[in-house]
Amino acid sequence: MTVGSGKTRNDGTRGMMDGMTRTKPFLAALGGEVIRPAPLWLMRQAGRYLPEYRALRAKAPDFLAFCLNPEMAAEVTLQPIRRYHTDAAILFADILVLPFALGHPVTFEAGEGPRLEPLTTRAQLDRLDMARAVEVGAPINETVRRVRAALPADVALIGFAGSPFTVAAYMVEGHGSRDFAAAKALMYGDAPLFDALMNHLVHATIAYLSAQADAGAEALMLFDSWAGVLSPAMFDRHVIVPTARIAAALKARHPHVRLIGFPRQAGGSLIAYAEGAGVDAVALDTAVPPAWAAAALPRNVTLQGNLDPLALVAGGDALRDETEGVLDAMGDRPWIFNLGHGVVPQTPPEHVAALIAQVRAKR
Amino acid sequence: MTVGSGKTRNDGTRGMMDGMTRTKPFLAALGGEVIRPAPLWLMRQAGRYLPEYRALRAKAPDFLAFCLNPEMAAEVTLQPIRRYHTDAAILFADILVLPFALGHPVTFEAGEGPRLEPLTTRAQLDRLDMARAVEVGAPINETVRRVRAALPADVALIGFAGSPFTVAAYMVEGHGSRDFAAAKALMYGDAPLFDALMNHLVHATIAYLSAQADAGAEALMLFDSWAGVLSPAMFDRHVIVPTARIAAALKARHPHVRLIGFPRQAGGSLIAYAEGAGVDAVALDTAVPPAWAAAALPRNVTLQGNLDPLALVAGGDALRDETEGVLDAMGDRPWIFNLGHGVVPQTPPEHVAALIAQVRAKR
Repeated sequence: MTVGSGKTRNDGTRGMMDGMTRTKPFLAALGGEVIRPAPLWLMRQAGRYLPEYRALRAKAPDFLAFCLNPEMAAEVTLQPIRRYHTDAAILFADILVLPFALGHPVTFEAGEGPRLEPLTTRAQLDRLDMARAVEVGAPINETVRRVRAALPADVALIGFAGSPFTVAAYMVEGHGSRDFAAAKALMYGDAPLFDALMNHLVHATIAYLSAQADAGAEALMLFDSWAGVLSPAMFDRHVIVPTARIAAALKARHPHVRLIGFPRQAGGSLIAYAEGAGVDAVALDTAVPPAWAAAALPRNVTLQGNLDPLALVAGGDALRDETEGVLDAMGDRPWIFNLGHGVVPQTPPEHVAALIAQVRAKR
Repeated sequence: MTVGSGKTRNDGTRGMMDGMTRTKPFLAALGGEVIRPAPLWLMRQAGRYLPEYRALRAKAPDFLAFCLNPEMAAEVTLQPIRRYHTDAAILFADILVLPFALGHPVTFEAGEGPRLEPLTTRAQLDRLDMARAVEVGAPINETVRRVRAALPADVALIGFAGSPFTVAAYMVEGHGSRDFAAAKALMYGDAPLFDALMNHLVHATIAYLSAQADAGAEALMLFDSWAGVLSPAMFDRHVIVPTARIAAALKARHPHVRLIGFPRQAGGSLIAYAEGAGVDAVALDTAVPPAWAAAALPRNVTLQGNLDPLALVAGGDALRDETEGVLDAMGDRPWIFNLGHGVVPQTPPEHVAALIAQVRAKR
């Protein structure tokens, strides 16, 4: 493990972070240091590809109840750490826990994606209940506390939430979608209602993530899975601006907590995002050319990504070559190795082990 | 209508194109001229949002038979020209006509997307029949001839095909998909078979588009709808390289025919595509910031796009503001106004008229 010198972010926290950066390479990289071998974790590193996950999940048929059970959620958060000792653990939960906690109807049926009551009226918006969210979301914080207490000293803990646009898109559309036509119909056609929903979600997300930081999360990640459906003007309004508001509020309350933003399929808008969203790191999706991102995004932002999860399914030469491509593109930038999207269920766990060995062998 | 001077592409065809560019602004823009108001057409400008389309479509229950009926296909190709006098007509067909013509099982069920027999074996590949494709695809060329003969003198005709990767992805996966996991499993896991399929499709696409050019198509467009699922290395191998092969072959046979490439959700890879795929124009999807594309893509490539089709559904201020954003970003680049994806069925036809009036009022 080598720690680059003089590559830290100039935000005044370097001195205060010193004790931590020496023991947690993931946080050092988020702080702007060039760490090689690169710190590594995998989106959805806890999940259906692991037999120990499936064994526990079989005991809890309801997915939201599983997420809100601290004993089970802490256990599955820790499973990939025991197996692979990745450099970070990420809270096991779902981005739709927050709208569910706010009182919006959300269900998960086996074999289908999530289903939500489509939000189309001011009355539905007015029913969202921040006090209820604090109570219903409390088990999430207990999970964070349990995981933090159980983690090895060099492994950091990431909390997360869906970004307001992605959560709003699910709430209005009612389900996943290729173009989110209903969500965008409301966004364009009733901007006051959509903006009010977004504003509500910004405040709820700040409270939700702040509680995770209080409970022990050392980094927080915002997943904007559907950012790629937006035009540049709407991307600015509904992705960059709300993320910057959340980042400013969280930084004010938790100056040492690092933020990672993941605006999936943002393409050329990644530059404006990296410059304006106030995050410490930008997660790159599979389609982003890492060498382009390394050259085009501001140097004071750490990059994370972005191996194709389907290369991880394939293994062998394809996995080695694709991984090498990402590693070579890192150059001397602060970088955290990850996938470009989550681990998929059909991934052989031994391919994950081979990937980690390759990344850790790279100097 | 103003035609910019000295902005033509330096490829030696300017003199020969002169007679044509004076009457067809769309082709002049593809040739590198800055035309304002910008020439305009809309992806899926013929389709379900038009009552005259629905009336004709009701008479032909089978969608592929509808595409392969020159009388009907020519009529629906011409419908939006009569209504809006857009600067280009695009052949009414489907990107899956080619694999169907090659003998691969393809069906369209009402209310569902296309279904194909998943191609996973060499035997299935060997059954693809180029001679059959020429025969089955012949009605497409007859449609092109009929439309070309019927078009106003200032309206150009665009032929098209799916790009090899997108067609291969459909053929292997068997249907549309968010991540094309099965297609990528074959791409990574059995590269010789996937490469052979791609090679077959490159040759078939050249023959298919060349026949359209012979029949009277003045521009050809390659739709790579699923390019955005690929890693940068696979994007180079399965998008840029095959497109460059097709472009080289078509340019050799039809030096005056212009090529438009549409690698959807390519993000930062658009730069490498515009530099290496050999196309005259790059179509931008909704998420591409047009100002970024105008600055980052080589100046000898015409840009096309990229209004959000959902803004066209909304109409009113949202449509005006989003359209103005695209118009402002064009600057002094060769540009063809279009959407960032196809017109959706719920689009009010009067919104299309309002959009066209706004674009044509812009100097």
